Amino acid sequence: VTRRLKHWGWGYEDEQPSVADLRALAALISERLGFAVGEPEEPVPLSEVAVPTPRLRPPDGLSEICSTDTYERCLHAYGRGYRDIVRAFHGRFDHVPDVVARPRTEPEVEAVLQWAVAAGAAVIPFGGGTSVVGGVEPRVGEQYAGAVTIDLKALDQVLEIDRTSLAARIQAGATGPGLEAQLADHGLTLRHFPQSFQFSTLGGWIATRAGGHFATLYTHIDDLVESVRALTPSGPWESRRLPGSGAGVSPDRMLLGSEGILGVITEAWVRVRPRPTRRASAAVLFDDFLAGASAVRALSQTGLHPSNCRLIDPVETQFTGTGDGRHAVLVLGFESADQDVEPAMSAALDVCTEHGGRFERRRGAAAGDGGSDVVGSWREAFLQAPYLRDSLIALGVLSETFETATTWDRFEAFHASVSERVSAAIDDVCGTGRLSCRFTHVYPDGPAPYFTILAPSRRGEELGQWDRIKRAASDAVIDGGGTITHHHAVGRDHRPWYDRQRPEQFARALAGAKAAVDPRGALNPGVLVDAVRGG
Amino acid sequence: VTRRLKHWGWGYEDEQPSVADLRALAALISERLGFAVGEPEEPVPLSEVAVPTPRLRPPDGLSEICSTDTYERCLHAYGRGYRDIVRAFHGRFDHVPDVVARPRTEPEVEAVLQWAVAAGAAVIPFGGGTSVVGGVEPRVGEQYAGAVTIDLKALDQVLEIDRTSLAARIQAGATGPGLEAQLADHGLTLRHFPQSFQFSTLGGWIATRAGGHFATLYTHIDDLVESVRALTPSGPWESRRLPGSGAGVSPDRMLLGSEGILGVITEAWVRVRPRPTRRASAAVLFDDFLAGASAVRALSQTGLHPSNCRLIDPVETQFTGTGDGRHAVLVLGFESADQDVEPAMSAALDVCTEHGGRFERRRGAAAGDGGSDVVGSWREAFLQAPYLRDSLIALGVLSETFETATTWDRFEAFHASVSERVSAAIDDVCGTGRLSCRFTHVYPDGPAPYFTILAPSRRGEELGQWDRIKRAASDAVIDGGGTITHHHAVGRDHRPWYDRQRPEQFARALAGAKAAVDPRGALNPGVLVDAVRGG
Repeated sequence: VTRRLKHWGWGYEDEQPSVADLRALAALISERLGFAVGEPEEPVPLSEVAVPTPRLRPPDGLSEICSTDTYERCLHAYGRGYRDIVRAFHGRFDHVPDVVARPRTEPEVEAVLQWAVAAGAAVIPFGGGTSVVGGVEPRVGEQYAGAVTIDLKALDQVLEIDRTSLAARIQAGATGPGLEAQLADHGLTLRHFPQSFQFSTLGGWIATRAGGHFATLYTHIDDLVESVRALTPSGPWESRRLPGSGAGVSPDRMLLGSEGILGVITEAWVRVRPRPTRRASAAVLFDDFLAGASAVRALSQTGLHPSNCRLIDPVETQFTGTGDGRHAVLVLGFESADQDVEPAMSAALDVCTEHGGRFERRRGAAAGDGGSDVVGSWREAFLQAPYLRDSLIALGVLSETFETATTWDRFEAFHASVSERVSAAIDDVCGTGRLSCRFTHVYPDGPAPYFTILAPSRRGEELGQWDRIKRAASDAVIDGGGTITHHHAVGRDHRPWYDRQRPEQFARALAGAKAAVDPRGALNPGVLVDAVRGG
Repeated sequence: VTRRLKHWGWGYEDEQPSVADLRALAALISERLGFAVGEPEEPVPLSEVAVPTPRLRPPDGLSEICSTDTYERCLHAYGRGYRDIVRAFHGRFDHVPDVVARPRTEPEVEAVLQWAVAAGAAVIPFGGGTSVVGGVEPRVGEQYAGAVTIDLKALDQVLEIDRTSLAARIQAGATGPGLEAQLADHGLTLRHFPQSFQFSTLGGWIATRAGGHFATLYTHIDDLVESVRALTPSGPWESRRLPGSGAGVSPDRMLLGSEGILGVITEAWVRVRPRPTRRASAAVLFDDFLAGASAVRALSQTGLHPSNCRLIDPVETQFTGTGDGRHAVLVLGFESADQDVEPAMSAALDVCTEHGGRFERRRGAAAGDGGSDVVGSWREAFLQAPYLRDSLIALGVLSETFETATTWDRFEAFHASVSERVSAAIDDVCGTGRLSCRFTHVYPDGPAPYFTILAPSRRGEELGQWDRIKRAASDAVIDGGGTITHHHAVGRDHRPWYDRQRPEQFARALAGAKAAVDPRGALNPGVLVDAVRGG
């Protein structure tokens, strides 16, 4: 029997925690977050979900790979943001695709795309379905004949490996574990580990400019992409494999972050590397978050380039078990497949010490792997977070994250203002709750802060509550000079703030680009720009 | 008295070498390149140059900053490619702008742009005028009412410095020395040193994705840009200052490499850094270029990130004086403002040794600055090369460079095939000559090879000879899987090969983007895409 993914949340159907587990979690929340939560609720079973009759019927030639089954339509109705899961948990499916296609080959992708566009449908490219910004929800307006979601996950192969150049050609539907397993057979790794790693796909990472493992230098998938192939309604778009180029505007950079509005990404050449064999890690304590931030700023401006440089504020250390709640913790790591990483770690720790950091290094049998317990527990918590959120939702806890980036000169005021405005909104909307912050990535000119909200929701009012808090957070980010997203993408949820952020003439240019290759405005309407429908 | 730039070549009018200097160079060429050259020719003086009557007259409000003077029009007629200088040297000016504007403020840029667009003119944004690909020549076709060149060099100020984030807001017309002098007052540097450094401008670097100082990591100006401001005919395009972002397609990446077809870049925030205080450099000898290339490949895949990693083939070492002509030389350098660079240099030299490299390090008073003579002479030759080319042209030597990038798996066959086809073309066209190669930049997945051609031309036939050799070189590059340019840009000269390289649907998208912000197709027509004229 094949395991089925939950139609409403993260992971597989058989992974739902027991009522006893949930009650234990409720006790932990009371203890660590200081607010009481209710009895666990059960998700509405799929059998009780009613969806509208499909408005489209796939042609006979495509029926084998197309489905109008309720499970498939519900599974592809939403991403995995808080409001997605809340709605699905409660059996509410606002916009289900009419047809879900699971092509197995690129010609099948092309056939589905051409049929759907000709039928006047909206087309939603779908990878892992892990969007937290409404990127895959067919909320497309009434002017389409229906919505066809193209799930790429059957295109999951590493097709070619170039050991000399350290590059691999990989199909867009390959998930993190799927492509890593295939690369591991060759002693190679992509080392792109977003939080959604377990389910998200290479194509999705490229379409959304996903942020990954490396805290510095190779922060986004952008930096690992050598060339991309996509299908637009007007034909294929495939760039040359090049290590670098200055031939006009980069074709790859126009697909990176295109969020499905220009084409369906089918494969890419990406830069891979030997698996790291040398690692050093450490946990450095600071009196508070801003003290840690000043150390991280100094570190970011050395050329030491730590692979991990995640500064966690005291509130967040407490909940994730990475600290005692009284200090900020910097999780610092270096890794290499060929070079000694100790000199860089030493130099980095010197910088931390100069900025008031305190640490204890243990050097054990695994040379230079000091501090691995903290790193290990951090990583474990990191990858478990999406599962945890499902449980929190079952317990009625509002659980939301938002992330951004801003320059160092503005950071302190930015952090203060975002914290104050969002905390006020949490208190106002939920009565109480917790806001915490960490850095996920850092640059010489600024950090990428990532905020987590945990607060008691009122049953039945979760969406309205989320909406008010999300608006306060997004307003604060944009008013403070940040980006509406450093690596979660824009989707439909961030559109109002994205529209305030991006240059107006750029938006016109992007809409012009879209109209040129997608004249009927079929691809992922509502995302990034308003489609100009012609054709 | 203000020094005037040569109307036909590189540098100032007072820098023209004497006949005796040129004869000495002729002797050196005979000795080092093995072919005889003729008597030096004199450039045709401007007084003997006839240009057509301007087709446009600037409005009264702009007359102070607009010129129809013959010197100004000839100075802005060409970039500084071989065929530009040959034509200008011989008094041939195929396409001069009708009006040259030198706005002093952004509102003046806007006023000139709006007037020119309304007048039905083609508009050529102009920085240092150092394009080697026909990027600024008003070769725009007959459908325009004239051509207006906007020279940005009066917008030359560093407007703002953010020491905390290590960033600076700089006007687009600032030249390399101009902006470095202003940054030096604050102990900072951009460290972007293209060969055109003396005259080229920040705006030009951004428009053309110029390649700079760093051989790894920060290879193009792209990597140093934090935000860009440009004026399109439809309004301003200004991105937020952000250290990193994942909010849709990058607006900056659409201006980077836009080569003047989307807007006139007026200023940018760029990432700067403290001046390096620690340096290590070395010259490593290899038996031949391919042996050196295998060492460079290994180095590029370590993570050591040398700032300089220029592998020069035996032919080129001989002519530039960096070697004896029997070995390939790798000029290797590390630099840092805060970290010891010796460990990285040691590790890099170990890699070279493993691949057959031989070196001798001298450690003198300037710690770790061994090998500085070779690096110094290489740098001197690098920056003098454009001056040298003027002299070569006066002596009737065909002097051309072309550069590219390709992946390591293809490199050996690529190098062989390009060398063979271009050498054959040189022999065929010129009877004899020299082709040499170096790496300017290197990536984990491939190098950026840079080729230099020196051959005896036939007086009066230079352009036809260039054309045949250029075609052979460009065909070989594209057939071999390279990019038509790694950092020289596309301009008008590379268009036929660029059109074979870039994805067709991307070209449609880019033309659509251009039409959206420049509906009359006024901006730099003929470059990158064919303008769709509407409006």
